[in-house]
Amino acid sequence: MSGEMRGGRSEGWHIEEGFGAVRLGLRVSALLHEEQSEYQKIAVCESEFFGRILFLDDLIMLTERDEFVYHEMITHVPLCGIKAPKRVLVIGGGDCGCLREILKHPSVERAILCEIDERVTEVCKEHFPWVEKVTADPRVELAFADGVAHVEEHPAEYDLVIVDSTDPIGPAVNLFRHEFYTRVAKCLRPGGVMVAQTETPFYAPEVVGRIRAELSTAFRFVDFFLGFIPTYPSGCWSWAYASNDGPYDAYFDELRAREVARSCRYYNPEIHRAAFSLPNFARTAINGEDPWK
Amino acid sequence: MSGEMRGGRSEGWHIEEGFGAVRLGLRVSALLHEEQSEYQKIAVCESEFFGRILFLDDLIMLTERDEFVYHEMITHVPLCGIKAPKRVLVIGGGDCGCLREILKHPSVERAILCEIDERVTEVCKEHFPWVEKVTADPRVELAFADGVAHVEEHPAEYDLVIVDSTDPIGPAVNLFRHEFYTRVAKCLRPGGVMVAQTETPFYAPEVVGRIRAELSTAFRFVDFFLGFIPTYPSGCWSWAYASNDGPYDAYFDELRAREVARSCRYYNPEIHRAAFSLPNFARTAINGEDPWK
Repeated sequence: MSGEMRGGRSEGWHIEEGFGAVRLGLRVSALLHEEQSEYQKIAVCESEFFGRILFLDDLIMLTERDEFVYHEMITHVPLCGIKAPKRVLVIGGGDCGCLREILKHPSVERAILCEIDERVTEVCKEHFPWVEKVTADPRVELAFADGVAHVEEHPAEYDLVIVDSTDPIGPAVNLFRHEFYTRVAKCLRPGGVMVAQTETPFYAPEVVGRIRAELSTAFRFVDFFLGFIPTYPSGCWSWAYASNDGPYDAYFDELRAREVARSCRYYNPEIHRAAFSLPNFARTAINGEDPWK
Repeated sequence: MSGEMRGGRSEGWHIEEGFGAVRLGLRVSALLHEEQSEYQKIAVCESEFFGRILFLDDLIMLTERDEFVYHEMITHVPLCGIKAPKRVLVIGGGDCGCLREILKHPSVERAILCEIDERVTEVCKEHFPWVEKVTADPRVELAFADGVAHVEEHPAEYDLVIVDSTDPIGPAVNLFRHEFYTRVAKCLRPGGVMVAQTETPFYAPEVVGRIRAELSTAFRFVDFFLGFIPTYPSGCWSWAYASNDGPYDAYFDELRAREVARSCRYYNPEIHRAAFSLPNFARTAINGEDPWK
């Protein structure tokens, strides 16, 4: 959250504080894992309601209860907007939640994970049930490397690039700059799409506005969509949908969306369309203005 | 939140805890008002980010920062679904936020507030800037009385009844029962609609399911819509749209919606349509099943 969130555990609660204004607390029980990797602090807690929770640098990355929202939206929205997607790159996403959803699309031949911190995936393999199966899938390739370098080395290679990063501070800061977006645009095949998580327009309108401005230097079409994520700040989360070949609604494979939705708990064809309808305050934020003035 | 939320102030924070699982904290500064009325504890706090905050029985009812979401959605969605609405009843809603939005519709001749606790409106008049102007409007009538009795005494009178209640415990419990819904159905004019706030399908799926079942005994058409409210539990809030004359999309005055949206920070014609597209877990909850099984 633009450097403005910090978290920690106290008396059976994980408490996250942001913007000097708000706290979110989740009741946790056992601390199952904690380590300092080369890049960040990785921790996993158990909790009764939310299931297991992954923390990076003391911030909630996912809970078993609501990770489905994030992972379904960041994958199925772009994948159902692309004709027969074959090659998909995930930058970040070491928890393999994106990969799990990507593999639901029968046309996908190759799903490459480019995660800078191999320890994230190793820890997740021990603690989250989907990781073992996903990483064993022959369509999956794990490349523990810098995403910025990877996209530069693979021009015109991908139908979809998903930037499943942490917040625009720390290890992920380069993933929110226009130099990176320009490289991503070059590594897309014709009809290709880039999707990225872009924080909350409620608490961080200036971040969303800045990302849109940076994206617009590399992509002709930049749209945003929203979803409810109860354990992320404000519950109102945004993603960017960027392409040089058309807007988000240039193509929609409704049949595939309906098929995929059968194994989803959030995504369906109606949500696909509705998610791009933005409240006025989010439109203002995306246009680079302060909605709270 | 189905009796499962409790809140209080501690060291400059209002902390609300629910479902044994989650806490939401808002940083507050001065306590501007606190009293025990005949019905409930009423308090108003100042806060830097959220502006003034109204609490009933120690739970957040509204903050100046995000009350626009709740009030725009509970009013403009039904009003733009009704041809030339003339008479509108608000049950609860003592903070007058609904009235403020209703008055934006030029066809409205009469907006009646039926709030059981006059002190809520009096306290809000002192602390929230819109109340004075709204209550002085000649179209507004304040009836500090029991909503259940009021609807019984006014058959075939209203184009729209808005149930802007607290959670289904305490003073509001009767506003969530099918006896009440049956009476509301009878006080509607042809083409009339009832809208009610119906909690969060994320933490309280069983509550939303129960409300749908109760509503269905009184109304042929019951739909639900969603909106992002950062200071309500989960951020994912639901409302019911009930009628005996057609589903929510039987009529939509897009021109009026667009006109009204010019003074809104959330609502617009695209949001109007999109809000009825429900994620799978919310559909499951509304169908009376447990989405977390």
